Amino acid sequence: MIVPYLIQFAQHIDNRGTLIFGEVGSELPFTVKRAFWILHASSLATRGGHAHNECHQFLIALKGSVLVETNIASYTLASPHIGLYVPPKNSITLSEFAKDSIILVLCSHKYDKEDYIYDQIC
Amino acid sequence: MIVPYLIQFAQHIDNRGTLIFGEVGSELPFTVKRAFWILHASSLATRGGHAHNECHQFLIALKGSVLVETNIASYTLASPHIGLYVPPKNSITLSEFAKDSIILVLCSHKYDKEDYIYDQIC
Repeated sequence: MIVPYLIQFAQHIDNRGTLIFGEVGSELPFTVKRAFWILHASSLATRGGHAHNECHQFLIALKGSVLVETNIASYTLASPHIGLYVPPKNSITLSEFAKDSIILVLCSHKYDKEDYIYDQIC
Repeated sequence: MIVPYLIQFAQHIDNRGTLIFGEVGSELPFTVKRAFWILHASSLATRGGHAHNECHQFLIALKGSVLVETNIASYTLASPHIGLYVPPKNSITLSEFAKDSIILVLCSHKYDKEDYIYDQIC
């Protein structure tokens, strides 16, 4: 089983602002077929709590921060240029959202309820 | 030439926050091979100013707002659940960034400088 790892992106900063990008074959380990973003999460909220059989995921806090607990380690995502790659079979739980956080998640597969694994041991 | 159009996403709101998602075959018109996000843009900044030969793009303001001018119309993106699909051959220019805006752009192709068209007439 491939384990999760952090991915650092280059920041392209000039007088127009900051641009951060990633693409398949370098920063992003997969082609993206689904994307979602989480807003207005309460600091008491917990999301996720499952793994995927086949779906690869990438998570990043574009604003604020979030605690991501996997089956092998915990990560606080708190930077718009450091994201977490989560390969299949690794469960993740999101909690401790900072106020007004914006969490972007990119996924390799379209939504398929059959792909979800709720056994926390995986 | 296919012209740009706005895409509205469903918002899934509960006591954990708001989740907004899109996937290929429904909300997203293409598979994503490159993603970038723009932060800390000055209200005086102008970005873009070009079209692409082959690359499809999708733009959304996850926070704040931005003016997107294409060759046929202008759009103010100011909602995290309404994005703009920009097919190839359509030029875009971004300006009037609201303070602390976060603009997400999803692209169908990896970066290729040969794909850029700087002729504003296209």
